[in-house]
Amino acid sequence: MDLWSIELNNYNKNNMKKSETIFALANGYRGLRGALEFSKLGSRGNLIAGVFDKAQAQVTEIVNCQDPLGFNIYIEDEIVDLEQCSVDSFRRILDMRKGLVVTKITVTTAKGRTLDIKSEKFVSRSNVHRWASKYEITAKNFSGKLFIENYIQGSVTNSSCDVMNRTKHLKVTKCTDINPGIAMEAKTSDLGIGIIECTTIINENNTFKTRKYSDFGEMVSEAYETIIKQESKESIYKLGVTYTSRDTENDLYSTALSEINDFIAAGYHREKEMHCSVWDKIWDGIDIEIHGDDKAQRGIRFNLFQLVSSAYEGDNRISIAAKALHGEGYKGHVFWDTEVFMLPFFIYASPEVAKSLLMYRYNTLKGARKNAELSGYKGARFPWEAADDGTEVTPKWGVDYEGNPLKICTGDEEFHINSDIVFGIISYFRATGDKDFLKNYGVEILLDTSRFWQSRVEYNKEKDRYEINSVIGPDEFHEHVNNNVFTNYLAKWNIEKALYYKEWLRKQDEQKLASLCTSLCLSEKDFNQWKEIAEKMYIPTNNDGTIIEQFEGYFNLRHIEITEHDENSMPVWPKEAKLDRLGETQLIKQADVVQLMLMLPEEFSDEIKRANYEYYEKRTMHKSSLSPSVYSILGLSVGDRSNAYKYFMKTVYTDLEDNQGNTDFGLHGASTGGSWQSVIFGFAGVSVGKDGNLKLKPWIPEHWEKLKFKLNWQGSKITFSIYQTHIEIGSTKFITAVINNKIYHVKENSNLLVKMQPEK
Amino acid sequence: MDLWSIELNNYNKNNMKKSETIFALANGYRGLRGALEFSKLGSRGNLIAGVFDKAQAQVTEIVNCQDPLGFNIYIEDEIVDLEQCSVDSFRRILDMRKGLVVTKITVTTAKGRTLDIKSEKFVSRSNVHRWASKYEITAKNFSGKLFIENYIQGSVTNSSCDVMNRTKHLKVTKCTDINPGIAMEAKTSDLGIGIIECTTIINENNTFKTRKYSDFGEMVSEAYETIIKQESKESIYKLGVTYTSRDTENDLYSTALSEINDFIAAGYHREKEMHCSVWDKIWDGIDIEIHGDDKAQRGIRFNLFQLVSSAYEGDNRISIAAKALHGEGYKGHVFWDTEVFMLPFFIYASPEVAKSLLMYRYNTLKGARKNAELSGYKGARFPWEAADDGTEVTPKWGVDYEGNPLKICTGDEEFHINSDIVFGIISYFRATGDKDFLKNYGVEILLDTSRFWQSRVEYNKEKDRYEINSVIGPDEFHEHVNNNVFTNYLAKWNIEKALYYKEWLRKQDEQKLASLCTSLCLSEKDFNQWKEIAEKMYIPTNNDGTIIEQFEGYFNLRHIEITEHDENSMPVWPKEAKLDRLGETQLIKQADVVQLMLMLPEEFSDEIKRANYEYYEKRTMHKSSLSPSVYSILGLSVGDRSNAYKYFMKTVYTDLEDNQGNTDFGLHGASTGGSWQSVIFGFAGVSVGKDGNLKLKPWIPEHWEKLKFKLNWQGSKITFSIYQTHIEIGSTKFITAVINNKIYHVKENSNLLVKMQPEK
Repeated sequence: MDLWSIELNNYNKNNMKKSETIFALANGYRGLRGALEFSKLGSRGNLIAGVFDKAQAQVTEIVNCQDPLGFNIYIEDEIVDLEQCSVDSFRRILDMRKGLVVTKITVTTAKGRTLDIKSEKFVSRSNVHRWASKYEITAKNFSGKLFIENYIQGSVTNSSCDVMNRTKHLKVTKCTDINPGIAMEAKTSDLGIGIIECTTIINENNTFKTRKYSDFGEMVSEAYETIIKQESKESIYKLGVTYTSRDTENDLYSTALSEINDFIAAGYHREKEMHCSVWDKIWDGIDIEIHGDDKAQRGIRFNLFQLVSSAYEGDNRISIAAKALHGEGYKGHVFWDTEVFMLPFFIYASPEVAKSLLMYRYNTLKGARKNAELSGYKGARFPWEAADDGTEVTPKWGVDYEGNPLKICTGDEEFHINSDIVFGIISYFRATGDKDFLKNYGVEILLDTSRFWQSRVEYNKEKDRYEINSVIGPDEFHEHVNNNVFTNYLAKWNIEKALYYKEWLRKQDEQKLASLCTSLCLSEKDFNQWKEIAEKMYIPTNNDGTIIEQFEGYFNLRHIEITEHDENSMPVWPKEAKLDRLGETQLIKQADVVQLMLMLPEEFSDEIKRANYEYYEKRTMHKSSLSPSVYSILGLSVGDRSNAYKYFMKTVYTDLEDNQGNTDFGLHGASTGGSWQSVIFGFAGVSVGKDGNLKLKPWIPEHWEKLKFKLNWQGSKITFSIYQTHIEIGSTKFITAVINNKIYHVKENSNLLVKMQPEK
Repeated sequence: MDLWSIELNNYNKNNMKKSETIFALANGYRGLRGALEFSKLGSRGNLIAGVFDKAQAQVTEIVNCQDPLGFNIYIEDEIVDLEQCSVDSFRRILDMRKGLVVTKITVTTAKGRTLDIKSEKFVSRSNVHRWASKYEITAKNFSGKLFIENYIQGSVTNSSCDVMNRTKHLKVTKCTDINPGIAMEAKTSDLGIGIIECTTIINENNTFKTRKYSDFGEMVSEAYETIIKQESKESIYKLGVTYTSRDTENDLYSTALSEINDFIAAGYHREKEMHCSVWDKIWDGIDIEIHGDDKAQRGIRFNLFQLVSSAYEGDNRISIAAKALHGEGYKGHVFWDTEVFMLPFFIYASPEVAKSLLMYRYNTLKGARKNAELSGYKGARFPWEAADDGTEVTPKWGVDYEGNPLKICTGDEEFHINSDIVFGIISYFRATGDKDFLKNYGVEILLDTSRFWQSRVEYNKEKDRYEINSVIGPDEFHEHVNNNVFTNYLAKWNIEKALYYKEWLRKQDEQKLASLCTSLCLSEKDFNQWKEIAEKMYIPTNNDGTIIEQFEGYFNLRHIEITEHDENSMPVWPKEAKLDRLGETQLIKQADVVQLMLMLPEEFSDEIKRANYEYYEKRTMHKSSLSPSVYSILGLSVGDRSNAYKYFMKTVYTDLEDNQGNTDFGLHGASTGGSWQSVIFGFAGVSVGKDGNLKLKPWIPEHWEKLKFKLNWQGSKITFSIYQTHIEIGSTKFITAVINNKIYHVKENSNLLVKMQPEK
């Protein structure tokens, strides 16, 4: 197995859903879960970014579109179905270098016919509307009739495995015979978004004898008949094209028809070539090489591959869902996961994608303003869970174990999303220097989120401080808390950045600022109040100020510390913890104070960081995939290397080892970003100083011979090679970098070599 | 295992289709294949007699209607699917006494949850529009959420496993929430026949917490949530109601709604009780007791059960398909199988059903006349394959092994169906004495089929004889043959019976005859020609007239005789036979001359029968399920007992042992009738003499202690008990019977005891 492959070497029907996530192929425009054509089990998915619908669902959710992957093989009267055949050998390979999934199966039917099926599939990165697969079918011990059926299944629903929430969003509007090929158009229930899937079959040797087209209403198919001789091979290509009415104002059918005809003319191999060459370029920019640790190497590439697959710069009305384009989990909603966990990767690896992701927030400001208005506040209140238009789509109710209704409060109380988005904007600007973006879009968000905070904070006259009460912070074990530091600190920081960049904008384009102030109804009076809020924002700490109190009253909760860890080094519930009364204890779900310190490292001294890291580490249950990487990175920055590698590998293998138990429902997008952050911000110790310089403070695990990666920084491309003994840095432009607290300059197109500091 | 049960004690996913046929439940109005609710494999079927459609199919076929059996069980997030669970134990019982299918399954899910599911199902014989099932679900080793989903699947097609012929006949027109319960209406493509399926769930202990109704377009469902505790049991009833626009002129939805409400009010147990009591009565009339041979006993009951299940007297626009209501094989078409193989049973067991079956032919006379006209003939030409209206629906083309088109000639050439129907009419009349039927319907068929023969025969001037050339007889190995004796003899007989009953009708109702002659354009000139045709019909034989030549020229074909038999005592292809050139040999597919002698035993002497039996037995490959029973019966009548039991058991176990290899596609209706004939006409030696008296000439296998059965004869019910040493006959009326060639009288409501003749 090479270091660019993820392999699965046995067929386990009970792991189908997980495999569908791992072997999903996506290109930012769409994701096709890695469903096996030859089994009906699993939870298939064709998710197209931006296609959302509510219909009878609890809330608006991403639509599982009509499934174009349908491909049946029949030998005489037997269908090749892994549930009905014996699976003699099975191998699935995700070739991350090329963006391909290769599947090799040997099956024997109930009547004893053995065949080899080798398939290859890609979702084009060169033309996001195209995808294709190739099938090589070899008859091992028989000759006979072979039927190939190419079909599109329109009887799809969301939550197909969840009987109480299964929802149909699509109505099939038209099936068409485009001989060769078939097309199915469907429309979503609420907005009437049109989606067309169009596929065709190409038979390499033109051996097909008969073709039959069938329109089954919610399924359209073309079937071909041929004879396969023993030991001979049939090679069949399936080409697919997808469009939605979000992509074009032209007639969907003519658009798809013209596209599939062009695709047929170009052929499978040409498109595959172009697809692979795009991936070549992508990898050249994003690859992380870890020499001396194959498991980490393969794992980090998986995370990079899937993260890059989840976004593209072609549509700034979409962002990355918590489960990416890899599954219906969390209903395709966008959380803070994007700005806080995934965006950093794009900022440094693909700034144009990062910009597009931030533009999604700009483009949904209208919804954010509506959210604020509906809850009685002003400005923009970004939704805790976002879909297509920025309005809040967090479900209001869930059910507890006994089937009783349970109120979900995150949509009402988890306000920090506003500052998380601002954090994304500031991070982007610091790394890219993209003034245009900041001027035209960023400052408006900074101002309008601050306007929200202004309306949200409460002034405590008695104590002369501003408070934010009844909130949920990142740690969701504790609800309705007052003065959660993560929320308060970031709100304060949000306002400070707004004030700072307001002045910056005044210098850049005074007219623009004036116009913004008019449209947002902001005056000097407001700015003055903002200053006061920022100055007087309440940040609870312990007596000497070393330990930040996660929220007001947290220190008084029942002291429970974690003392045991399981075989995966993950915390074991302390015996005294009652799972239904966690809010009464100091146990927390995930990094909260520590998360803040990771996001705003320049705001806290190393001593404060270390003290809080040590304090909270003992109390953090890591019941979110977002948590381990945070501790890994902050641990390294405060000199605790003991857990860093363990948490890093935990994060990297979140999905590959399904260590959160829910990879079935999609990718852990935040973990993919967290994996990258663990390497770059953790092991390489990359940060941005208050002075705006790039800082590096690396430490790599002892068995790593070399860690190599590239970053985009202020328009230059910097290559970092970190060895146990030294560091090599190359840059395409002149840069200044602070390495292990010393200032260095790297000249344009040259390399710098820095010896590692001896260990203390 | 009692003698009323068919049991299956292991789960084999590759035998699903066969099991679905064996465990099908039908009531003449409809058949529900025995699909397992907990597996998606197999070939489900909901066939409603008389609902035919062509759409894009090759020919008109019976419609596989929307499937009302949908029933899913979910434990937490796991669906109970036998393909995803381990099947710890599996038992399926067809309780023929009560008309129930009982299924007992123990499964363990992938996550280790074990549950027992016991279900019971019936398709009501008391009210043919009703069916129901009961589920008892026991949690063995867990407590947790239990979801029950009741659904109707409308995405059904015919030939679902045959990709080149898969056809959608139904369009779902409406789904309705009838809380509790769901309904789905659909319409056929051509005639717009409306079909409604309506089902509801009753929870015995009212433990359901939440209900969710969903309309998925081509699927409608209601799902319920509850909690199941370890070792506790949930009992759930599912009640179903079916109507079509063929059944009522009222609004389908209101009809079904009112019916399901009545059903809910009556309850599962009441309907089951009534259903079982109807079966009680049925068995009282039809049971055959075979003492001393459990295998034969169980087998014959299976055949009786399924045969009775395939017809009812409630609709005389329908008949019994070759595969009954048990599968889509032969497209639900009616062949000569009905009149020649199945009808005799109904004549003697349920004369009212027999009449209804014959009325189907009367009601399709219009189509039969159209067939004659279209092929340039006169009178009525019944179709070789019939659907709803009597027009010929035999497919014109098939494909050979290489996928090349192959002309199917049976629809053009297998003319004997006309006389087979007349054979049915005469048999019915002889046994029942139903003059009304003959007067009002029968004679018209006799005359109009003779009118056809009149136009079909060719006069050979040179030889002064009538010929029927270019036909196919029962033996389909030989096509386009001239003067097939089966065809010629029965045509002659058909005409003779027409002439005879014309005169009979003249005596009964001269006006009726006159009116018939007018409407059929028949004059004395025609009748005179008929006489001449009957007298001069060519019947080829060997020189001394002892061996009938199956068709002109048969004796000159290549002599090949069967010398070997396989382990099942079935003929092995002689080495010199070439399968693609069988027409050049004397090998025949099935009984042909022997079939004739079985149908018209009074027309041939015992010597002639014996000679022909011996001659053709060596040449008959029994490649039709219709063949073995014929040899069994004729063998017995000519004193060859060597093969009788073997062929009898072969016939009885046609489906239970799937010895034709295609039980997957439905019941072998002809075999069920053939099984009955083997017992009654074979072992009991029942026949009707030229004098019209009932004759009996029994011989029972040595290990049979007693053979007991009842027959309807001329309005009386006769009970026969045949022992090795004597015979007991009881009758409800005075009858005369010829037993072993001696005349006896049985007085009303008394018994007659006759000693068996000592063996020669």
